[in-house]
Amino acid sequence: MISMDLNCDLGESFGAYKIGMDEQVIPYITSANVACGFHAGDPAVMAKTVAMCKKYGVHVGAHPGYPDLQGFGRREMSVSPADAKYDVMYQVGALKAFCDSEGVLLTHVKPHGALYNQAGKNYDLALAICQGIQAIDPGLKILALSGSCMVQAARDISLHYISEVFADRGYRADGSLVPRSQPGAMIEDEEEAIARVVRMAVEGKVTAVTGEEIGIQADSVCVHGDGPKALAFVRKIHQVLEEKKLLIHSDLAY
Amino acid sequence: MISMDLNCDLGESFGAYKIGMDEQVIPYITSANVACGFHAGDPAVMAKTVAMCKKYGVHVGAHPGYPDLQGFGRREMSVSPADAKYDVMYQVGALKAFCDSEGVLLTHVKPHGALYNQAGKNYDLALAICQGIQAIDPGLKILALSGSCMVQAARDISLHYISEVFADRGYRADGSLVPRSQPGAMIEDEEEAIARVVRMAVEGKVTAVTGEEIGIQADSVCVHGDGPKALAFVRKIHQVLEEKKLLIHSDLAY
Amino acid sequence: MISMDLNCDLGESFGAYKIGMDEQVIPYITSANVACGFHAGDPAVMAKTVAMCKKYGVHVGAHPGYPDLQGFGRREMSVSPADAKYDVMYQVGALKAFCDSEGVLLTHVKPHGALYNQAGKNYDLALAICQGIQAIDPGLKILALSGSCMVQAARDISLHYISEVFADRGYRADGSLVPRSQPGAMIEDEEEAIARVVRMAVEGKVTAVTGEEIGIQADSVCVHGDGPKALAFVRKIHQVLEEKKLLIHSDLAY
Amino acid sequence: MISMDLNCDLGESFGAYKIGMDEQVIPYITSANVACGFHAGDPAVMAKTVAMCKKYGVHVGAHPGYPDLQGFGRREMSVSPADAKYDVMYQVGALKAFCDSEGVLLTHVKPHGALYNQAGKNYDLALAICQGIQAIDPGLKILALSGSCMVQAARDISLHYISEVFADRGYRADGSLVPRSQPGAMIEDEEEAIARVVRMAVEGKVTAVTGEEIGIQADSVCVHGDGPKALAFVRKIHQVLEEKKLLIHSDLAY
Repeated sequence: MISMDLNCDLGESFGAYKIGMDEQVIPYITSANVACGFHAGDPAVMAKTVAMCKKYGVHVGAHPGYPDLQGFGRREMSVSPADAKYDVMYQVGALKAFCDSEGVLLTHVKPHGALYNQAGKNYDLALAICQGIQAIDPGLKILALSGSCMVQAARDISLHYISEVFADRGYRADGSLVPRSQPGAMIEDEEEAIARVVRMAVEGKVTAVTGEEIGIQADSVCVHGDGPKALAFVRKIHQVLEEKKLLIHSDLAY
Repeated sequence: MISMDLNCDLGESFGAYKIGMDEQVIPYITSANVACGFHAGDPAVMAKTVAMCKKYGVHVGAHPGYPDLQGFGRREMSVSPADAKYDVMYQVGALKAFCDSEGVLLTHVKPHGALYNQAGKNYDLALAICQGIQAIDPGLKILALSGSCMVQAARDISLHYISEVFADRGYRADGSLVPRSQPGAMIEDEEEAIARVVRMAVEGKVTAVTGEEIGIQADSVCVHGDGPKALAFVRKIHQVLEEKKLLIHSDLAY
Repeated sequence: MISMDLNCDLGESFGAYKIGMDEQVIPYITSANVACGFHAGDPAVMAKTVAMCKKYGVHVGAHPGYPDLQGFGRREMSVSPADAKYDVMYQVGALKAFCDSEGVLLTHVKPHGALYNQAGKNYDLALAICQGIQAIDPGLKILALSGSCMVQAARDISLHYISEVFADRGYRADGSLVPRSQPGAMIEDEEEAIARVVRMAVEGKVTAVTGEEIGIQADSVCVHGDGPKALAFVRKIHQVLEEKKLLIHSDLAY
Repeated sequence: MISMDLNCDLGESFGAYKIGMDEQVIPYITSANVACGFHAGDPAVMAKTVAMCKKYGVHVGAHPGYPDLQGFGRREMSVSPADAKYDVMYQVGALKAFCDSEGVLLTHVKPHGALYNQAGKNYDLALAICQGIQAIDPGLKILALSGSCMVQAARDISLHYISEVFADRGYRADGSLVPRSQPGAMIEDEEEAIARVVRMAVEGKVTAVTGEEIGIQADSVCVHGDGPKALAFVRKIHQVLEEKKLLIHSDLAY
């Protein structure tokens, strides 16, 4: 059965600081990546967010990042693979406590920001993260960029993975994303973006920026809930996938 | 069967900073309270400490504290019971990840420093912490000051608890500790201190600073590994309890 | 000459997190208390906020708080007077760097949140803070609750102080604020609140909740810019004080 | 007059955590780089360290680092030049407060660890840092790796700089350090190390790892106080420089 997951980062508020439109976006997604306190989020926000995921039947994932609240985890850091592994394990465990207390399953882990980007290109870093996740619970999945080092590392140690695609990003012929600094990086037209996602889901194919038809594994689409425009897009892609019966059921395991 | 547990705080190093003589003290204790990153400890230290506990067959407990690394968790904070509960859950979960990865059981939770002291006197705070622990895993125990609000709260919700006594502290007739600012607060003589612990274990009694014989539940004695003198005391109390066959077996559940 | 200062906390954003309507409120205030990175604010926000104060001719003050970003500095902490002094000095110095780089004078220091409240009641804490401020620059003023320990400590060491009053709070006969938990704590009516401020400025008097006329030193009124309603009030009180020629000139020293 | 400065990082303790043999090393150095709370140090430690520098007549410099206490500021971060500038200004200002309170001059700024290394190679980063330092006080000097981008940037904006050399490191023909991973990176022999420093001071020359005689500006030598061996070396190099009358006088400006 072909099915597509819609994943979104949630729980990024911290103390008195609010970010995101979590309440608005959660009815339209199927998986949440919940910030774990290093780059965003705090224990009270995590508790609230997991409870909200339970209410809406949304898969709960951990969203660990670098220990850089000031930079929102978006700044690259030369953290050693071993330290990155321990940082990820710490954060996954912290979120799992709130899942256990709510009686919901922690389904997946999606590294955040610079950690996601660096682990996508650095196999040793990706492998260490995958090993850390697997060591906690072999049933956990990693949500990782299609074709990245994270997917490769997950395969190599038989860790389940969810291959993530982006609706609004161009792809190169080798399956990597067109860098944001280059032409074709962004798919501006919303209809086209959604059509691409549908095709990725149904045919497993996408047209590269250089024109080639390339194969792509599309298990989950990353969406955002950080503003009215992003929210409108989530609603639209949700509706289209629902109509085409492509959307993953919230009561299904991945 | 009468048996006594020797508990010690471990894993208090942080990054480049080292504290404690963990390697020296661990052969002589039966339970470790492992710092969880808020007042001390970091993910790499936690991983190493849990592995060391496994090697020595020492019970692993979480040692959550206030988010105050600068003050080592020793400064009182007016954290709400709800926030304290979430902070504790977060830290317990983080440590549990390292236990899960090593295949060892997380046995207990001992609040640290000012959190321990405040929860010992504030029932609402104690109750919130106990509820948080129980929500993660009803099999977890709280390691708490004998006769404190934490013990009361644990009883009230049927959370298992381990009643902690201090070898080097004087007790008042009501079972509370003599404040450090008052005469009789400290038991300076080591032989006397050990004899008191043995009697607490065997008879369940201790002599109060005002002369009364009082009942006391002594499941675990708190020891320290932060210096040569502390270490020598741990060896001595370990030896005496071992000779009298009072020491808990490391392969036993509590 | 009778004149009144309108002070407001600014620069409370942090990294990706935004708080406050700084741009909207700054045209209507005469003094800004700029967060210094412990409870809110970060170096980039501080740089931007000081530049904004310069542009609008608003007095720049440091707004140091407890090292508690998660609690926004609102949670009481048992920080020793010595440590509080050093924490305040650190934060004041950090803000002063941005003032120096902009060529604007750092005029005052207003402790934040729980630090303000605790120093208002604890003379030793207040004294330590005042000494720390004076040690950096004897020309600095402390902005402190009228009649509080901070005012007393400032007087005792001849540190300049600015006596702060609240438009929307009731006073007791001894000059202290009616606690928020008691009747009469809040002055709900905006017209009445403004009339009280005008009277405090012109006559140095206010009617206590128990009916007595009491003397009060009113150098500065605390206003807020954290929402549309607060902003509307700032505009109104600004207008009234301006019309009555009571508002301090932005180009004047206090 | 030829003279050489001996600089050492001090004040790296944090809260309950102690690092370094500050009391032992300070009698033998002429300049201290005092950690500013981001990668190490805290306000109380800074206060104590500045007072100690005053007592020993040692030049006080700020030692700002990345906001990474867990990594001791040794992990590279992709902080933007603007943010690095603000972070440096913040830390320099914080330390300056303690200098002002002691009535001692803040003489210089030495970036720490990964910030030092990255700014040594990245001109934009180096320039931003130099501009930040100059904006606070044009009399401040930057203490920077000889021949690095920091020296170049300082020259370009006429910021005073102190050119730093290393006694125990090999140099390449272009004046850069031999990377630690390559042969010749370390000068193991202490006598040779000291002889090289003397020659750098007197002749302005050093023999590169490939045999060439190269010119080098040697204003200051970096020494360490983090262990008995390092301390012994500081004493020895201090003695040799003192005997040869090459050591900078502590009462001189640079």
